[in-house]
Amino acid sequence: MIIALKTHFRVSYSDTDQMGFMHHSNYLKYYETARWELFRSIGMPYHKIEGEGIIFPVTDISVKYIKPAYYDQEISIDTAIKSLTGARMIFYFLATNENGETINEAQITVASVRKINNKACQMPKSIFNRLKELMNNQ
Amino acid sequence: MIIALKTHFRVSYSDTDQMGFMHHSNYLKYYETARWELFRSIGMPYHKIEGEGIIFPVTDISVKYIKPAYYDQEISIDTAIKSLTGARMIFYFLATNENGETINEAQITVASVRKINNKACQMPKSIFNRLKELMNNQ
Amino acid sequence: MIIALKTHFRVSYSDTDQMGFMHHSNYLKYYETARWELFRSIGMPYHKIEGEGIIFPVTDISVKYIKPAYYDQEISIDTAIKSLTGARMIFYFLATNENGETINEAQITVASVRKINNKACQMPKSIFNRLKELMNNQ
Amino acid sequence: MIIALKTHFRVSYSDTDQMGFMHHSNYLKYYETARWELFRSIGMPYHKIEGEGIIFPVTDISVKYIKPAYYDQEISIDTAIKSLTGARMIFYFLATNENGETINEAQITVASVRKINNKACQMPKSIFNRLKELMNNQ
Repeated sequence: MIIALKTHFRVSYSDTDQMGFMHHSNYLKYYETARWELFRSIGMPYHKIEGEGIIFPVTDISVKYIKPAYYDQEISIDTAIKSLTGARMIFYFLATNENGETINEAQITVASVRKINNKACQMPKSIFNRLKELMNNQ
Repeated sequence: MIIALKTHFRVSYSDTDQMGFMHHSNYLKYYETARWELFRSIGMPYHKIEGEGIIFPVTDISVKYIKPAYYDQEISIDTAIKSLTGARMIFYFLATNENGETINEAQITVASVRKINNKACQMPKSIFNRLKELMNNQ
Repeated sequence: MIIALKTHFRVSYSDTDQMGFMHHSNYLKYYETARWELFRSIGMPYHKIEGEGIIFPVTDISVKYIKPAYYDQEISIDTAIKSLTGARMIFYFLATNENGETINEAQITVASVRKINNKACQMPKSIFNRLKELMNNQ
Repeated sequence: MIIALKTHFRVSYSDTDQMGFMHHSNYLKYYETARWELFRSIGMPYHKIEGEGIIFPVTDISVKYIKPAYYDQEISIDTAIKSLTGARMIFYFLATNENGETINEAQITVASVRKINNKACQMPKSIFNRLKELMNNQ
């Protein structure tokens, strides 16, 4: 799979827990930011999609914790779109630490949902086409 | 000041940071829960207030961190209403650990705001009267 | 699989996001609390295990988000141990809302790790035996 | 007061609550990151200070919430050191949104504490001198 976007974050103090690791729930927050940065990079910031009455809630995640992330480390996230239909897209994420070690890997599925009734829906064609194009160019 | 309600919570693992303390930001979350439990205790759960188009966002906080809270401790919160007008209320919170030691103290002001335009407003009379009664009975 | 423990939590305001749902990352926090409550219920609070120099970090999660959880709802979590070796245990979680609807399902693997060197290790026999007994009685 | 460092962050989706605002507790996380970035900017990353057995826990905060921060906005934080002794320092923070509007203001006190016994202590001279110099040059 070819990576669509590389983003970066630094582990903040509030991300840590008393094991001295970034708490395992925080990866989901950073992966969420990474996927909306991917959308921003192709001219579709997620707040505009929500502005059109569509939301993309998470429906499935699977995460593999390989090594801990520590306070103040700079972590890179590679994001790719793994599959795409009008109603659902699957993202793949790979997190790497400053030493180039893979620390975490995830697959996250989001659905296209109409905000007003919380029902699954086809995403607007304009969004779908732009994502399809991105996938083909990955 | 007489305490209107005593609530309890247990410090969760995700509340801790690598100092081994509950992270200082988490007190605000538990104080928020404590004040809405106070509202629930007088028959006005906060989700009903929001349902009427009124929100009570925080406008001012001041917190004194006296001792740390540690993972798995049971913390008690005493909540009182310190002052009340139609547009603003000030809460006082006192957090105590399992040994009866005061660990944290806070004063938090919330405003009455109309959700639709995000403007300050007088809270509904029914809510104000119920809170006034509570204050007088504290 | 027979459920080892049922626990409960109420969705707090800080758990929500602007979709109006509990943010998907927060399930991991409540599942963590649920599994340590299971440990407490058999006389082994997790802070004692850490006190013996053993930590149980998460290595794999898979979560299925079926329905949203909303602010102020009371959510029940059924927790079970699905498999157990000296170095690894797999938990199963099922979250149900106030209407008895299944809203979320997860499988979470934790490893037994020696804190001092962050290496996988066999958990103390006393802990293993107590968990084995619990599994057999589920 | 002259500003010692300007930092920036973008409001993430997980920072929001169902009011559609950044949850009020999250300012504390970003102010914490801002003050450790100030330390990094003068060659003293906070993880090195902790590595010497000294921690700087928060003892007092006062925050004024002026306007909400919204999802995806870029927020600037101006950080200054307001006062400094060997055992305590007071930071001042001012948060500004993309339109140049002041949205939040805070004063946060941290103490110098020896990690091993959790007792107040004089911070190492090298750190104190470097901060003093920074204050004088603000």
